[in-house]
Amino acid sequence: MEDLEIRPAVAGDIPAIVAMLADDPLGAQRESPDDLAPYLTALERLAKDPNQHLVVAVREDRVIGTLQLTIIPGLSRRGSTRSIIEGVRIHADERGSGLGTRLIEWAVDESRRQGCQLVQLTSDATRTAAHRFYERLGFEASHVGFKLPL
Amino acid sequence: MEDLEIRPAVAGDIPAIVAMLADDPLGAQRESPDDLAPYLTALERLAKDPNQHLVVAVREDRVIGTLQLTIIPGLSRRGSTRSIIEGVRIHADERGSGLGTRLIEWAVDESRRQGCQLVQLTSDATRTAAHRFYERLGFEASHVGFKLPL
Repeated sequence: MEDLEIRPAVAGDIPAIVAMLADDPLGAQRESPDDLAPYLTALERLAKDPNQHLVVAVREDRVIGTLQLTIIPGLSRRGSTRSIIEGVRIHADERGSGLGTRLIEWAVDESRRQGCQLVQLTSDATRTAAHRFYERLGFEASHVGFKLPL
Repeated sequence: MEDLEIRPAVAGDIPAIVAMLADDPLGAQRESPDDLAPYLTALERLAKDPNQHLVVAVREDRVIGTLQLTIIPGLSRRGSTRSIIEGVRIHADERGSGLGTRLIEWAVDESRRQGCQLVQLTSDATRTAAHRFYERLGFEASHVGFKLPL
């Protein structure tokens, strides 16, 4: 893992990121790896927002992981800033290698650097292995996550 | 409810908002209504971010509800934009009046207007009445919400 780099995603990373999003029991039905245009548009919007940090994990020029970190200022908890982690994906060949831990640790460190007092994320209720992973990293499953598709 | 107004929060609303944040079994230990400075600093940061919408519900010049809506662009789900609702509070005198429904409907409508394909929120696992409320509004409790205090 020594030569692992975690850096901001650029347009050239999009095919690899979308392939990881689609290579997933839930993502398979939700993504369109044959049409990258909507992803490139979204990347442009992310790049303009200083509170958005879409990163990739790269080893030997190969994109093997990704996540999105969003910094959210707020009033509650004495004006705390929190961060939200979304879209964590690890390439199938790299699962179990500790890369997920490295990525989440990066997100936690970056959140601390940005003055956040809380890191949060939601995980689909069916992803029980992911839940154990987050609990091992110190996260507490204290909340219920609700979603409403529009 | 006819004369209810939902509008962006301003500095003059902060005492009323913080009083609502503190008047809550969980918030009582986390807020400092006697020291508004950190909340005013947070409001300035929120006001500068076009993806943040901190609003108050006002009737007869009285602040009776609040929530924070955050717009989050992203790559997953074909470059979907999602929104996150945080910090929903209804004044104790107004609970059960339908105001919570009005505020969440505002947030859902605004999310749609901003091009979001998904609205999400987390609710503390102990807030079972809130869970039924969100389910009645069409939200699905499909996720587990994890938090890590820093």
